[in-house]
Amino acid sequence: MRSIELLESNVRSYSRSFPAIFSRARGSIMLTDDGRQLVDFLSGAGALNYGHNNHQIKAAITEYLASDAVVHGLDMATPAKLEFMETFCSVILRKLDLQYRFQFTGPTGANAVEAALKLSRKLTGRQNIISFTRGYHGMSLGAIAASGNRFYRTASGASLSGATFMPYDGYFGPAVDTADYLRTTLMDESSGVDRPAAILVETVQGEGGINVASKQWLHSICTIAKDVGALLIVDDIQMGCGRTGDFFSFEFAALSPDIIIMSKSLSGYGLPLSMLLMREELDAWQPGEHSGTFRGNNLALVSATAALNIYWRSPIFSQGVKRMGEIMRRRLEAVASGYGNGFAVRGRGMVLGFDCGATEIAELTTRNAFSKGLVVERCGPDDQVVKFLPALTMDDETLNRGLEIFEDSLAETMKRARMAVS
Amino acid sequence: MRSIELLESNVRSYSRSFPAIFSRARGSIMLTDDGRQLVDFLSGAGALNYGHNNHQIKAAITEYLASDAVVHGLDMATPAKLEFMETFCSVILRKLDLQYRFQFTGPTGANAVEAALKLSRKLTGRQNIISFTRGYHGMSLGAIAASGNRFYRTASGASLSGATFMPYDGYFGPAVDTADYLRTTLMDESSGVDRPAAILVETVQGEGGINVASKQWLHSICTIAKDVGALLIVDDIQMGCGRTGDFFSFEFAALSPDIIIMSKSLSGYGLPLSMLLMREELDAWQPGEHSGTFRGNNLALVSATAALNIYWRSPIFSQGVKRMGEIMRRRLEAVASGYGNGFAVRGRGMVLGFDCGATEIAELTTRNAFSKGLVVERCGPDDQVVKFLPALTMDDETLNRGLEIFEDSLAETMKRARMAVS
Amino acid sequence: MRSIELLESNVRSYSRSFPAIFSRARGSIMLTDDGRQLVDFLSGAGALNYGHNNHQIKAAITEYLASDAVVHGLDMATPAKLEFMETFCSVILRKLDLQYRFQFTGPTGANAVEAALKLSRKLTGRQNIISFTRGYHGMSLGAIAASGNRFYRTASGASLSGATFMPYDGYFGPAVDTADYLRTTLMDESSGVDRPAAILVETVQGEGGINVASKQWLHSICTIAKDVGALLIVDDIQMGCGRTGDFFSFEFAALSPDIIIMSKSLSGYGLPLSMLLMREELDAWQPGEHSGTFRGNNLALVSATAALNIYWRSPIFSQGVKRMGEIMRRRLEAVASGYGNGFAVRGRGMVLGFDCGATEIAELTTRNAFSKGLVVERCGPDDQVVKFLPALTMDDETLNRGLEIFEDSLAETMKRARMAVS
Amino acid sequence: MRSIELLESNVRSYSRSFPAIFSRARGSIMLTDDGRQLVDFLSGAGALNYGHNNHQIKAAITEYLASDAVVHGLDMATPAKLEFMETFCSVILRKLDLQYRFQFTGPTGANAVEAALKLSRKLTGRQNIISFTRGYHGMSLGAIAASGNRFYRTASGASLSGATFMPYDGYFGPAVDTADYLRTTLMDESSGVDRPAAILVETVQGEGGINVASKQWLHSICTIAKDVGALLIVDDIQMGCGRTGDFFSFEFAALSPDIIIMSKSLSGYGLPLSMLLMREELDAWQPGEHSGTFRGNNLALVSATAALNIYWRSPIFSQGVKRMGEIMRRRLEAVASGYGNGFAVRGRGMVLGFDCGATEIAELTTRNAFSKGLVVERCGPDDQVVKFLPALTMDDETLNRGLEIFEDSLAETMKRARMAVS
Repeated sequence: MRSIELLESNVRSYSRSFPAIFSRARGSIMLTDDGRQLVDFLSGAGALNYGHNNHQIKAAITEYLASDAVVHGLDMATPAKLEFMETFCSVILRKLDLQYRFQFTGPTGANAVEAALKLSRKLTGRQNIISFTRGYHGMSLGAIAASGNRFYRTASGASLSGATFMPYDGYFGPAVDTADYLRTTLMDESSGVDRPAAILVETVQGEGGINVASKQWLHSICTIAKDVGALLIVDDIQMGCGRTGDFFSFEFAALSPDIIIMSKSLSGYGLPLSMLLMREELDAWQPGEHSGTFRGNNLALVSATAALNIYWRSPIFSQGVKRMGEIMRRRLEAVASGYGNGFAVRGRGMVLGFDCGATEIAELTTRNAFSKGLVVERCGPDDQVVKFLPALTMDDETLNRGLEIFEDSLAETMKRARMAVS
Repeated sequence: MRSIELLESNVRSYSRSFPAIFSRARGSIMLTDDGRQLVDFLSGAGALNYGHNNHQIKAAITEYLASDAVVHGLDMATPAKLEFMETFCSVILRKLDLQYRFQFTGPTGANAVEAALKLSRKLTGRQNIISFTRGYHGMSLGAIAASGNRFYRTASGASLSGATFMPYDGYFGPAVDTADYLRTTLMDESSGVDRPAAILVETVQGEGGINVASKQWLHSICTIAKDVGALLIVDDIQMGCGRTGDFFSFEFAALSPDIIIMSKSLSGYGLPLSMLLMREELDAWQPGEHSGTFRGNNLALVSATAALNIYWRSPIFSQGVKRMGEIMRRRLEAVASGYGNGFAVRGRGMVLGFDCGATEIAELTTRNAFSKGLVVERCGPDDQVVKFLPALTMDDETLNRGLEIFEDSLAETMKRARMAVS
Repeated sequence: MRSIELLESNVRSYSRSFPAIFSRARGSIMLTDDGRQLVDFLSGAGALNYGHNNHQIKAAITEYLASDAVVHGLDMATPAKLEFMETFCSVILRKLDLQYRFQFTGPTGANAVEAALKLSRKLTGRQNIISFTRGYHGMSLGAIAASGNRFYRTASGASLSGATFMPYDGYFGPAVDTADYLRTTLMDESSGVDRPAAILVETVQGEGGINVASKQWLHSICTIAKDVGALLIVDDIQMGCGRTGDFFSFEFAALSPDIIIMSKSLSGYGLPLSMLLMREELDAWQPGEHSGTFRGNNLALVSATAALNIYWRSPIFSQGVKRMGEIMRRRLEAVASGYGNGFAVRGRGMVLGFDCGATEIAELTTRNAFSKGLVVERCGPDDQVVKFLPALTMDDETLNRGLEIFEDSLAETMKRARMAVS
Repeated sequence: MRSIELLESNVRSYSRSFPAIFSRARGSIMLTDDGRQLVDFLSGAGALNYGHNNHQIKAAITEYLASDAVVHGLDMATPAKLEFMETFCSVILRKLDLQYRFQFTGPTGANAVEAALKLSRKLTGRQNIISFTRGYHGMSLGAIAASGNRFYRTASGASLSGATFMPYDGYFGPAVDTADYLRTTLMDESSGVDRPAAILVETVQGEGGINVASKQWLHSICTIAKDVGALLIVDDIQMGCGRTGDFFSFEFAALSPDIIIMSKSLSGYGLPLSMLLMREELDAWQPGEHSGTFRGNNLALVSATAALNIYWRSPIFSQGVKRMGEIMRRRLEAVASGYGNGFAVRGRGMVLGFDCGATEIAELTTRNAFSKGLVVERCGPDDQVVKFLPALTMDDETLNRGLEIFEDSLAETMKRARMAVS
């Protein structure tokens, strides 16, 4: 670790929260070079929905590498790309009666967000993007301008413009319909909020604290977008690929967004891949208007195709995710209620937040958890929410082991807190 | 191809210039699914300096995959990352007596550029970035604002700010020292050009038309940066990793930039990887201030380490690149002079531009070349420059075959042109 | 009029609403060149609180002109300026136990707003300004960015940045405390709303539709500003100089803003004059940092001093304004209630809005009014509010005459509307 | 003065350079309250081309005031406005065979500049404005973004965007044609300089150091504007109204700009007034798109009409200005050459700059001058240029007295400098 500290920039972050050298990993278990085994409830911040080094997917990329098929080809046509698109259509889109064009962008979520905003601005001739309190969309200048986090915004060192923040579902408590606010503001000829090119929304906010939008609210947002001539963009970077139970996070609300942004678990193996799905009539790009060296990373397209074939041809996988999500939720709610009303549990499918109310409690608990064998991170505006993102492929035993470690870690924290008080 | 056209967005570009399905590739040869073999002078736009599917490097990643070592670990500490950093220090930096900290950003060049600009702004409290006419630095909002290309700038649909463009070396012909202009403007209290956070420069502009900065000019830029309290950032995304002969493109001028941006061929295998090298005292990041899911792509770090070990431990590889660069230059200059003075050859090492003066000539020539078995693209403000980026590992025979195809293709173009005239 | 149309730009506006050549004016009566006499309820959009060509004030400027005292002196020291500042201190500030420094800016309200925002940004190192839905602060780029009106914003042809709009008092009806929303958003580390340099507020929004902020809401805004380290700027350009009954519009709430912006009726005679009052410890300007050729217009300072001496040395004038305000309010409320619940009356002191609900009704009514001898304009996001801004020096008879014309005009409109329906 | 210091903001500036209370003024003589008489070579920074309190003009406004004609009428039609426009057409425009529409903006030069930029952006759909090194156009956010002065730019506290600075005529010495540079950059598809909405130029830069554009260069700029579809805007705020000899500063080059911006001496009496002249076919404003309370200040329109009638109906006045300009130039050049080659004299008509090379020499000299009875200010990027702006109505004797004081003051400075050296 000392060498890492000397050589790598201060910007490094997870190697501080989880101070160990991670040498191997398989499924939901990570191994450190000093022999510890840890249950992984972080899953590469949602990039490893199918677990580490998933062996079925690995077989596909190993074979591809061996064959000398094209690994890097810019956006040239390759059988790998074609197969991915056709598989995605048949396995995912057709079932939902959706039709989209594919755009492979630079392989970061931020780059896909930038492309989506660009296309929206180009199409509408407007510059403003409606995004939401506590939303998070990436680190590059265009994406961070649409992200709520003050720490990241300040770090940009630049004056960010081009986005207006509106309150997310539930931001002012259950009594206030924040979609009404959005509608009022956009319809008012003197609200100061410029007509938007797009409304950019996560159906569940991950980084922002596991905030869940209701079906009703999402429908309202969708209608407002139509009414004001803005595109509806769903950022499904973290919440897509089965995280909430269905492949897309918005299936429960039966939305058909104008643009869908995907990345993270899309490749299925933790390989960098990002894409935009756009309704055909919105595909107003000129050739090459948004380019990038690593767009259409073929190795990642191969693993992505494998993941679709393995997990999404039947409904069984999705059902399992929902079932495990329920296990997690019930257990975490029981834990929370055991401590009175200081804690709250939020989420959908296998993304759950355990809101500790106070930063210190969450911090100490995740630190305890790491020492007891669990990798789990925090989120929310004050990092006060413990964020559960286990692999969707986790078995019940490991899931329960992880939850038990969390429960013990929280108990230890609360005991220490009580002692500090008395 | 028809399926590609139906499914993939209009934004696709290389699959138009090179309309074929590329099924396999090895070294400098690409194979299409209808059995054609093509010599590759494009090299993934500079991401494949060691050729396609380099077998020595492939061995390293295949072994890594097999071992279930961590492939995706956000920015957690891994042996793969540590080994890469140590190898880079011992093989590259120590020899040049340079010391830098490593930052692994989201795996696109643009993301690394964004991080470099962020850090510069944070450090100086200034917003302005000096970049140069015809410079190119990426597609996200922060990077495109510092890029000259009007087509890309317009596509952003946003009003771009935060960068001031200055004339690159030679922009006004050999008689005018454009560094003088830069100095005058920055020193003038009433020039309208705000004090910059950084000067962002490519030593050879690739996308901009293969424009080569002289040693003297680069020294001046470096001194000006110091004098005005700005950071000197060298964007070595395309020109680094041996492209100009040395590992870094600025070694010939003995610069030691404040920040170096690397990507493209860094991973050695076409896998997405980007990094920033920064002088230690400039490492003012707070933990996590610039994050990203795919930063520190371990598989790519493994291939990157392999590439360093294979090609850069001895000076032989570099010597070979320079030698082949000379072969190319001589042959292209001969071709150019054979047609009188309408053509110009520019470049350093194994990046060369053949400036056709007119867009149509360049376009027709590269189209001819493709049909004759050569993949080569164009660059420059009007796409009037044929851009030679062969793999640095190419053998002389293939190199000569490629050059011959180009020569024939140009001849055909010129013949047709003469016929059109008469 | 034909010559005006040929020579003056299409941008002209009041000469369309009130299509006549106005040759003379005195107090609250305007005369056209074809001999019509009109009651003026517009008062130069609030710049003529003491009526047209007020003879007492005129005497002061006529004498000043005759004496060859300095009329134009940039910001050189003159007895006129000194006398104005001392009079303002003794007549206005001392009574309220307030202490401020004077800055005379370019003689437009917008220029004073620009100076206030500049100073706030300079002091805090922040860029964001909180302004409010339906707020209006001027036409130059910095001021319009903080103004809500979409028509004006769009006309700027530029992408406006640097301001965030929050709901004004009552924007979501009486049940929602919009100050709570502001506080929540600014305190949230992930709301996307950047820490503000200043909160810029009108206590009654004129252009925005005569929206009245409550004492309680203004106190909350004031506290929030303190809590987040932002300056509280009251834009009293239209609502100051007695319009709401007291000299400053915020006296009823006993605020002491960090910066007060004044213009319009400040000179007392319709002469261009603008100023900033700032708390002494905020006076961080470097000499000359905000300059302007016509700052400190001495002729206007002379008339401004005269106005203070004539109207503000005793409380009688203020009492009269409040009394007349009550007359207006009662009469307008009676009119409104006579028509059921389609109309609403809002305002404070002698600024009242008669909200017609529908643009057409307001438009037709003011047009009728003009033909019947009343100059009165409209405001609000859809120009649906008739805006009453009579001179504060108006006599009861003229006031009642004007109100009667309005009442008749509305009646005529409503009759026509009923006929159209049946 | 002590009271001024206590009450007025630190931002005050001329009251520091000229620390006296100025009680009266007439023509070119200013009187302080302690009885000093000073020759005025500052002329309200160019707002008093016809001298202080010009008695012929005073008669017109005194009569207007006495008649109770409309003083403040927003942009309602008045006989005063109509008479001004008709007089301007017949006295100025018709002679030059020019035809323009009149727009009266808020009465500051900055506001007129903002309106001009707005209209250009609206017309072209572009945002970029080409302005020039050392150009100065005003203090509001839109105007300062197009102004070169770093001190003012920094004071804005905001990140300024929307303008690109190009080298003014002569910026790189006589050998370089900077118009060529502008053309190259705008024509280059990859220069990073976005297509401009307008080119904004002063024919002589006042604040920037009395830099004079040649006829040839202005023609080139004009042609370039046409070629790139940009509007040519001449900022004649300081250089118009006879300052350079002709009424407009561009008459010598026979330009017909798309938009002309006027203010400062337009009213003839130091009263705030600003206007835009635009070619009829560019008058794309919607009614009210650029408004302002003090636009069309009738009192100033009356004095402006008087000035036109008095000075511009015959060519005699203009001839006199040119003659006096020659006197000044010859004398200043003699002074300069008397000291070897450290000094330079620049200018046209009655605006001349005496470039001292060093800030200290200029500063000491103007301070000496003030103590000897001359009001004269400095300009240029380092305030190293003494700026001569005498009233155009000055008599030869006063002119010579002023020049003599300057000569003595410089001599004293140089003597002290020589003593400091030895």
